[in-house]
Amino acid sequence: MGSAAGGGFPQWNCACPNCEGLRAGRLAATARTQEGVAVSADGERWVLLNASPDLRLQIERLPALHPRAPRESPIRAVVLTSGEVDHCLGLFSLREGRGLPVYTTARVRDALVRENALAGRLLGAGGPLGWRRLELEVATPVADAGGRPTGLVVEAVAVPGKPPRHLESVLDPDPEDTVGLRLRAARGGPVLAYVPGAAAVDDAVRRVAASAACLFFDGTFWRSNELADLGIDARRAEAMGHAPLAGTEGAIARLAALDVPRRILIHLNNTNPLLDETSPERQKVPSKNRHAADAATRRTASSTAAAPGT
Amino acid sequence: MGSAAGGGFPQWNCACPNCEGLRAGRLAATARTQEGVAVSADGERWVLLNASPDLRLQIERLPALHPRAPRESPIRAVVLTSGEVDHCLGLFSLREGRGLPVYTTARVRDALVRENALAGRLLGAGGPLGWRRLELEVATPVADAGGRPTGLVVEAVAVPGKPPRHLESVLDPDPEDTVGLRLRAARGGPVLAYVPGAAAVDDAVRRVAASAACLFFDGTFWRSNELADLGIDARRAEAMGHAPLAGTEGAIARLAALDVPRRILIHLNNTNPLLDETSPERQKVPSKNRHAADAATRRTASSTAAAPGT
Repeated sequence: MGSAAGGGFPQWNCACPNCEGLRAGRLAATARTQEGVAVSADGERWVLLNASPDLRLQIERLPALHPRAPRESPIRAVVLTSGEVDHCLGLFSLREGRGLPVYTTARVRDALVRENALAGRLLGAGGPLGWRRLELEVATPVADAGGRPTGLVVEAVAVPGKPPRHLESVLDPDPEDTVGLRLRAARGGPVLAYVPGAAAVDDAVRRVAASAACLFFDGTFWRSNELADLGIDARRAEAMGHAPLAGTEGAIARLAALDVPRRILIHLNNTNPLLDETSPERQKVPSKNRHAADAATRRTASSTAAAPGT
Repeated sequence: MGSAAGGGFPQWNCACPNCEGLRAGRLAATARTQEGVAVSADGERWVLLNASPDLRLQIERLPALHPRAPRESPIRAVVLTSGEVDHCLGLFSLREGRGLPVYTTARVRDALVRENALAGRLLGAGGPLGWRRLELEVATPVADAGGRPTGLVVEAVAVPGKPPRHLESVLDPDPEDTVGLRLRAARGGPVLAYVPGAAAVDDAVRRVAASAACLFFDGTFWRSNELADLGIDARRAEAMGHAPLAGTEGAIARLAALDVPRRILIHLNNTNPLLDETSPERQKVPSKNRHAADAATRRTASSTAAAPGT
């Protein structure tokens, strides 16, 4: 499935002669995802050897690994050769598995599950990340690792949501579970509002969007019962933290009342009929409610805050 | 950077009308990676809004986010709107960060770092994965979640290695840290040997490879001091758990002595000169030591165990 070491080729933080040469098109070489192999005794039931961080992409590139039903997979088990990040992180992308067997030595399992060293080292003190607190409704300058300004200021506003599913039985819901963001350049200019998850369009969402030049908003589900209708999950959209888009009380109707020139739907679920460009639902979405396509609009989307004044 | 909800579009275990239609080429739609946005006030210093599991791919698709030096990145900070897996998992792919600031509410940080609910839920009991123990040097039939055989049998052999870096200060090294695998169909047929990481080619590696039709072997580094020479990391290849390929004592010379018809190098680091198809090092590798390219040889690689008798 992939043949590169940890980080892949090219690597996100590397401009060595190989990585830089590949990006510039000067090197006679092929981009490679991180290492892993899929094996099968019959071409029907597949076993993964290691689960790389690139697993989602790797599965999509191999038709033999594609599911045949709404929640199914020909991947029947995983075998790990070590507990290295580049061999394990893909396990987290199999989060809708149903008891998918993972074969490891007792040592590798203990280290991953009991000692929790992976998350501890990567997310904890002394690791590669440095945590900075966002106080609700306080404009916070965003600085880099050396404390130098990035030129951006962010403000978080609590919006209707819920704890992530993995926290539901651990912690009570809290306003800080889900926030929307208002972003602007420190030197002034237009506001970008970013609300990728919200269980309703309420006053808090309106406060995030106030006077924004552009709003990214949660486009997860078209209908409240979208997953139930497909037999995937009995929960309603709102119970999963997402306001449905359709209907007179839906998010699109409520967003239409906002004074925001550009409104872009983001975080679309794979079941959303808006993904089908020919669907009747798609024709109902006003052109001012665009949904971001990865390829077509990504330059526009990413340069929104980069071009104050436009 | 991406516009899909958790799981992306299409999703690994989903063949709903949208996912299936996209894969079959029947749907007027675009594949989408998981949701996230990159913003910048000046087009130079970039801030990520959420860090999706697809982050590595997303960074490579946006030239503005590419590094300018061997260990550098224009990504200066990350801002999270929630602790959902599809907003956080990309943090683990930034593992070579150097104190990269991550802005979150106190709640989201506590949930990720202190409670460790993410790894606990995804890797622990009752989660999507079911752990199965590999005893060293015991042939173990690989079964699916329902206990039904997959038709494959695997045997793990301890090979020279080291604990993953995140465990180095937590646990003493153990033979079970790193294993090689021997795989065969339960009905018989040729053996596939898989050793993606090994600090030396020793008797244990030779035992994994004995009478195999094909061997995947650790091709991480060409030279022992490859990273030091580029100023990236002072450690030698062997200290990082990888036998260097070059030289009369190197892995290629030692593998050449094995009676294995196909030998495929895998887990190549981005600094490895073998990635450059025109490099002098590449010309030195016997054609029987192939290195797997993601695109070109993936069908061959994945069908090795699927086609006993060929």
